[in-house]
Amino acid sequence: MLDLYSDATPNGLKISIALEEMGLDYRMHQVFLGGEQTTPDFTTMNPNQKIPVLIDDGFVLTESGAILLYLAGKTGLFLPEDPKKRAATIEALMFQMGSLGPMFGQYLVFAAAWGNKFPAVTTRYFGEVSRIMGVLNTRLQGRDYLAGDEFTIADMAVAPWIRLCEIHPACAELPLSKNDNLLRWWTQVSRRPALQKGLLNPEPFAPEKQFDGFVKAVVGLGEIHSIA
Amino acid sequence: MLDLYSDATPNGLKISIALEEMGLDYRMHQVFLGGEQTTPDFTTMNPNQKIPVLIDDGFVLTESGAILLYLAGKTGLFLPEDPKKRAATIEALMFQMGSLGPMFGQYLVFAAAWGNKFPAVTTRYFGEVSRIMGVLNTRLQGRDYLAGDEFTIADMAVAPWIRLCEIHPACAELPLSKNDNLLRWWTQVSRRPALQKGLLNPEPFAPEKQFDGFVKAVVGLGEIHSIA
Repeated sequence: MLDLYSDATPNGLKISIALEEMGLDYRMHQVFLGGEQTTPDFTTMNPNQKIPVLIDDGFVLTESGAILLYLAGKTGLFLPEDPKKRAATIEALMFQMGSLGPMFGQYLVFAAAWGNKFPAVTTRYFGEVSRIMGVLNTRLQGRDYLAGDEFTIADMAVAPWIRLCEIHPACAELPLSKNDNLLRWWTQVSRRPALQKGLLNPEPFAPEKQFDGFVKAVVGLGEIHSIA
Repeated sequence: MLDLYSDATPNGLKISIALEEMGLDYRMHQVFLGGEQTTPDFTTMNPNQKIPVLIDDGFVLTESGAILLYLAGKTGLFLPEDPKKRAATIEALMFQMGSLGPMFGQYLVFAAAWGNKFPAVTTRYFGEVSRIMGVLNTRLQGRDYLAGDEFTIADMAVAPWIRLCEIHPACAELPLSKNDNLLRWWTQVSRRPALQKGLLNPEPFAPEKQFDGFVKAVVGLGEIHSIA
């Protein structure tokens, strides 16, 4: 049996999407990021105190990118066998893990959690996320999916981040509609029934509670936030 | 033949280390990050305008984490076959790609490139890099290498970042010596002859030129930096 410790954040939802797309049974254990991730039990599972954590019959695995590759290996799905196509898929996944996710995360820290206290810093991250969306747009020129003509784990990794442009107030100004290929891709992948199901598991906590959890989960922000 | 487009930055040096450790022949093409990465030729190779880029007989691959996995697949080296050990290696690699690298990078942006203009922001990233080093220290408790008892591509990915604590003035205060396991690991891996050779290819440009390149390469910083 697969046990997923997660919450309704982009990194968490990637794995719900993968499990639904792969047709795997799993138990969802929702973690409230306002403190549950720092308990001794959770820290034993993941010393980094982050979701998602997957447990597969006692084998504990963290890092959403690693979990996606593990599940693809386990099922033989959504990761091409051909070495070059496989490398292109992992390339797109790494771009999500190393650029889109971290820079989007920093944008949310300064625009939302930190209440835009440093506008120049918010602007830096707004610019960087916008640039990264442009890179995704270029990558999608003439191809249906991020790694070519197949829907892969790379698309699963990027989808919940791009979705923020539609659901998060601080992300409404990000240039989704200005990037035609990216918008076309999002329109297409967001229609997938399994992906839609994954995006709703777990349901988010109430907005105030979720935001409070986000603020508390951002390392080093508690003290500074209280000054603001 | 393998062609590597790179510079003496942590993400670049990961690949030099891998190529040396794997005993592969390659040609080094040093890219000056003060503008060469934004030329049309380079942008065609990588729309993200970042090094490293590897070309293997015409196949172009970007993202240091993807290149490491590709080279491990090509040679059968430094990535265990066993699914759980393999997953643990990729987990450590993803932690480097998604946390250590991006947060260390942001620390350098605010501490160095941006001249500590926003001390609270610098402090946030100093705290986050310190926390991440503590997580690595926990991961190394009772094991020789980041993914267990074997030296893997995960160690290659982390090594050039930890090395900054020894060579970069802005990183001298980071808690390397306070994290016993991490210090022991670094002492051990930094003695490897192939890793040492990789860390010196390419040689960095002169410090002022390298720093100028770093400042210019940081998206959105040019304008703001000139205000400071």
